[in-house]
Amino acid sequence: MLIALLPGDGIGPEVVAEAKRVLDALAIPGLAYEDALVGGAGYHEYGHPLPPETLSLARRADAILFGAVGDPRCDTLERSLRPEQAILGLRKELNLFSNLRPAKMFPELADASTLRREVAEAIDLLIVRELNGDVYFGEKGMRRTEDGLREGYDIMSYNEAEVRRIAHSAFRAARARRGLLCSVDKANVLETSQLWRDIVIEVATEYTDVALSHMYVDNAAMQLVRNPGQFDVIVTGNLFGDILSDQASMCVGSIGMLASASLDANGKGLYEPIHGSAPDIAGQGKANPLATILSAAMMLRFSLGQAEAADRIEAAVGKALASGARTADLGGTMSTSAMGDAVLAAL
Amino acid sequence: MLIALLPGDGIGPEVVAEAKRVLDALAIPGLAYEDALVGGAGYHEYGHPLPPETLSLARRADAILFGAVGDPRCDTLERSLRPEQAILGLRKELNLFSNLRPAKMFPELADASTLRREVAEAIDLLIVRELNGDVYFGEKGMRRTEDGLREGYDIMSYNEAEVRRIAHSAFRAARARRGLLCSVDKANVLETSQLWRDIVIEVATEYTDVALSHMYVDNAAMQLVRNPGQFDVIVTGNLFGDILSDQASMCVGSIGMLASASLDANGKGLYEPIHGSAPDIAGQGKANPLATILSAAMMLRFSLGQAEAADRIEAAVGKALASGARTADLGGTMSTSAMGDAVLAAL
Ligand SMILES: CC(C)[C@H](C(=O)O)[C@@H](O)C(=O)O
Ligand SMILES: CC(C)[C@H](C(=O)O)[C@@H](O)C(=O)O
Repeated sequence: MLIALLPGDGIGPEVVAEAKRVLDALAIPGLAYEDALVGGAGYHEYGHPLPPETLSLARRADAILFGAVGDPRCDTLERSLRPEQAILGLRKELNLFSNLRPAKMFPELADASTLRREVAEAIDLLIVRELNGDVYFGEKGMRRTEDGLREGYDIMSYNEAEVRRIAHSAFRAARARRGLLCSVDKANVLETSQLWRDIVIEVATEYTDVALSHMYVDNAAMQLVRNPGQFDVIVTGNLFGDILSDQASMCVGSIGMLASASLDANGKGLYEPIHGSAPDIAGQGKANPLATILSAAMMLRFSLGQAEAADRIEAAVGKALASGARTADLGGTMSTSAMGDAVLAAL
Repeated sequence: MLIALLPGDGIGPEVVAEAKRVLDALAIPGLAYEDALVGGAGYHEYGHPLPPETLSLARRADAILFGAVGDPRCDTLERSLRPEQAILGLRKELNLFSNLRPAKMFPELADASTLRREVAEAIDLLIVRELNGDVYFGEKGMRRTEDGLREGYDIMSYNEAEVRRIAHSAFRAARARRGLLCSVDKANVLETSQLWRDIVIEVATEYTDVALSHMYVDNAAMQLVRNPGQFDVIVTGNLFGDILSDQASMCVGSIGMLASASLDANGKGLYEPIHGSAPDIAGQGKANPLATILSAAMMLRFSLGQAEAADRIEAAVGKALASGARTADLGGTMSTSAMGDAVLAAL
């Protein structure tokens, strides 16, 4: 099994290095690793955020462990050369359409959330975000209005096949959890959402054991503050999923702790912490590597059939936290590698 | 001065009636009132959510006090006949492009928020949401892909004139407050956002006393949970504004308390509580009328030049809360009209 390591920019290399140490410590037979440059790092070396070598490694690999992309030095480049294009390109080229973002409070970090403790403690949800469509990948550009005004435009769309496959992902995920699925859209305004809702309702007939509800996105943003414990699985489009999954992550209070998986139809996946490249603390050994370590665990579970190894990592992270290990984002002073050591010690 | 009263659906008529009693008690000379049906109520009586009589009253009026629209019995109607089209139609037909949604904690309700007290107490922000453009009003529909699949689509766009006028609104609002403006977009993905950002930066040169920053919408949704006290004025497009303003409202914990104004270029405005029609409690005298009473205060201040009367209403609401008046949403048992009485008594 080949794992592609794409550390990327900012704190990416530091946190991926710790995850690699943890993977090495598990000594799982048959795993091989190759790394490649991506994001700003790809641009600076090869003139492109997703160099052909990197894309071809990603294609060959059975799974991808991704750090983060984003580099302020690239802010003025044209859109197609910016670091973000690397992650968008990988999602699209590899048909990674199903983004799973669990948000659950770590009991050891109960005071990290700005939500009242009893509200935060009740959070145990999974956001299933569609990643290959929506206004992200439609035709877009600058044009002139009839009056000669500059206008920016982006076409939002979903077709029935795109909605159907993410709906199936979400219903299956709900079935494996508490059996509640909330589909979030803006069907009172958007035709894209109307199709989304129609297809989700159609797919629901195949999952009569799952309780389906619908919520407008503005209400969902409110409910995630008012009573996030009401949610089990939320399924939504690319744009709303971007917003709501970041909001939900912050509700559990520890963005440095949260992992994500982006899967294709065959279980191949890209695994990344949901935090970004954090250029302000890059290279200082301050970053929290746990989100990446937990992403490696998700990778073992979902793409490599190593559920037991995944369990071991997750337990070790819990133990490290329980023993008081805290990086700066968690209110402590531990360095990135010291946190890696703490997890290794707990393994 | 003519005020159009458009109570609409659900709890709309109940809460608008209380606001009218408060306005009457102020006995401001020269105010006249006319009412008309809108939303589901308009549809059931005239076959359209925004009947011509209602639109023409809204045009003639100097200001509009609006209740809420939304009626589950209309859920299966075609989009153009649904209640929501009434509010979208009024915003567009009357060029009400600037939506002001203040969110500030009422000290009397400090425990209503699910955010920790010290986090919620620091909230004092204003969201300036563009209301006439974006994916709300672009071309939209159902079509077939090349492969014959059903596809829903909606075109998102902003032109430079649309962005410029809302940017000026927002910079002026920031100048009158703490001088901080945060523009929220998704410029790393959307061309619409790129134009938005370019124009906001251009307009900023006329407001060198205002500190401008930019934030991606996913990060903004996180920051509103992590540290909402960092914001003074947020300016954003129609869709992101819909989501973030509802999220921010819930952060202050009392959605039944929050007012909003939607203004045209000449100060004419539509005033509405940000809560919806709440069909589940309609007609039971349980609704909290304070958001509508405070919307009437905003109307006096922004459209009718009656700042002093507005101050009196706001002070009376504070006094009523301080005296312990609480409707069900605030954890009390008071009826809608009893809350109206409490405000009248405090006036
Ligand atoms: C970097 C950016 C393009 C990306 C997105 O919007 O999808 C990020 O915010 C994410 O959620 O992974
Ligand atoms: C009713 C709906 C169309 C409306 C909107 O999305 O603008 C509402 O959510 C609002 O925010 O006023």
